[in-house]
Amino acid sequence: MLQPDPPDTLLDDGRQSPAALAVQRGVRRLFARMQAASVTELVLASGRRADVVVLGRGGEIAIVEIKSSVADFRADRKWQSYRAFCDRFYFAVPEAFPAALIPEDAGLILADGFDAAILREPPAHPLAGARRKAVTLRFAHAAAGALLAISDPAARLPDAF
Amino acid sequence: MLQPDPPDTLLDDGRQSPAALAVQRGVRRLFARMQAASVTELVLASGRRADVVVLGRGGEIAIVEIKSSVADFRADRKWQSYRAFCDRFYFAVPEAFPAALIPEDAGLILADGFDAAILREPPAHPLAGARRKAVTLRFAHAAAGALLAISDPAARLPDAF
Repeated sequence: MLQPDPPDTLLDDGRQSPAALAVQRGVRRLFARMQAASVTELVLASGRRADVVVLGRGGEIAIVEIKSSVADFRADRKWQSYRAFCDRFYFAVPEAFPAALIPEDAGLILADGFDAAILREPPAHPLAGARRKAVTLRFAHAAAGALLAISDPAARLPDAF
Repeated sequence: MLQPDPPDTLLDDGRQSPAALAVQRGVRRLFARMQAASVTELVLASGRRADVVVLGRGGEIAIVEIKSSVADFRADRKWQSYRAFCDRFYFAVPEAFPAALIPEDAGLILADGFDAAILREPPAHPLAGARRKAVTLRFAHAAAGALLAISDPAARLPDAF
C-alpha cells in the first residue's frame, strides 16, 4: 500500500484533529490581528511540542495549547512545563468545551475555524533573557526552515537543534 | 486584461531575475548545510530590502546581496548600509561574474542554482544586542507571516513593522 509522504512543513503535519485545526486557525487569526506572528508544533528545548507559539512585535512569547475535547484535556499532564518557555500560557478550546475545567491560572481562548477571543488573560511570568533568545531563535529557525522546505525541498534545515 | 495576483509570500515575489533566483537558491542551500536559516527579501528597519538574511544557530546574522550582472553591481550604492544590520556581509555572484569587482572588505560567495561556496569570509562586525534582537524579531515575523499567508491567506500579518 502506498504510504503518504512524511510531513515536511509546519502547515499540517497530521498531528491535529480537524476540530483542533479549526481552533488553531482561529487562534492564529486572533494573534495576527494583534500583529503577533505564530508557528505551530514547535519543538521546545525540553523536547515537548507546543501547539502554537506566538511571538509579539516586542518579542513577547505566548504558548497556546489546544484542547478540542475533555478527554484531550484530561490526558495532559505536561502543560505547566510550558510556562518555562513563554511569558504567558493559554489554553484554547472550542465553544462546546466546558470552560470551567480550565485552571484559573492559565489563560483561556475560545476559538472556532474563523476567529477567536481571549476570555481570560493569564498571569505573566516574563522569561529571562537567555531563554527568550533561545525560544525566539527556535521559532525563527522553524518558520524559515518550513518556508525553505516548501520552496526548495532539497535544502532542508534540520528539524530541531 | 487579467492581472496576476499580487505577491504574498517570501517564496517568489517577482523581484528577482531567473539568474538571481538561481544564485539565491544556491546560497540558501549553502547556509542550510551550515544549519543556518534564511529568508529572502527582508525589509530592514532602514526600509531597505535585503536579498537574503541568514540566521545562524547561535543567533549570528549575515546579509547576502545577490549580484547577477556587472550592471546590477554597479547600480548598487547602498551595500555598505547593510553592515548596520548584520554581523557579516557577503556578495553572492554567479560564475560568469568578474569576482575582482567585489570589494575586498565584503565577503564573496560563488553560487549557482544547485550549490554555493564561500570564496572569501568578510570581517565580522558584531551587532549590538538591541539591533540583533530587532533584526531577529523581524526575521521571525517575516518567516512566520509568510507561512501563515500560505496556510491561511485570510490571516495575514502586516508585511513590515
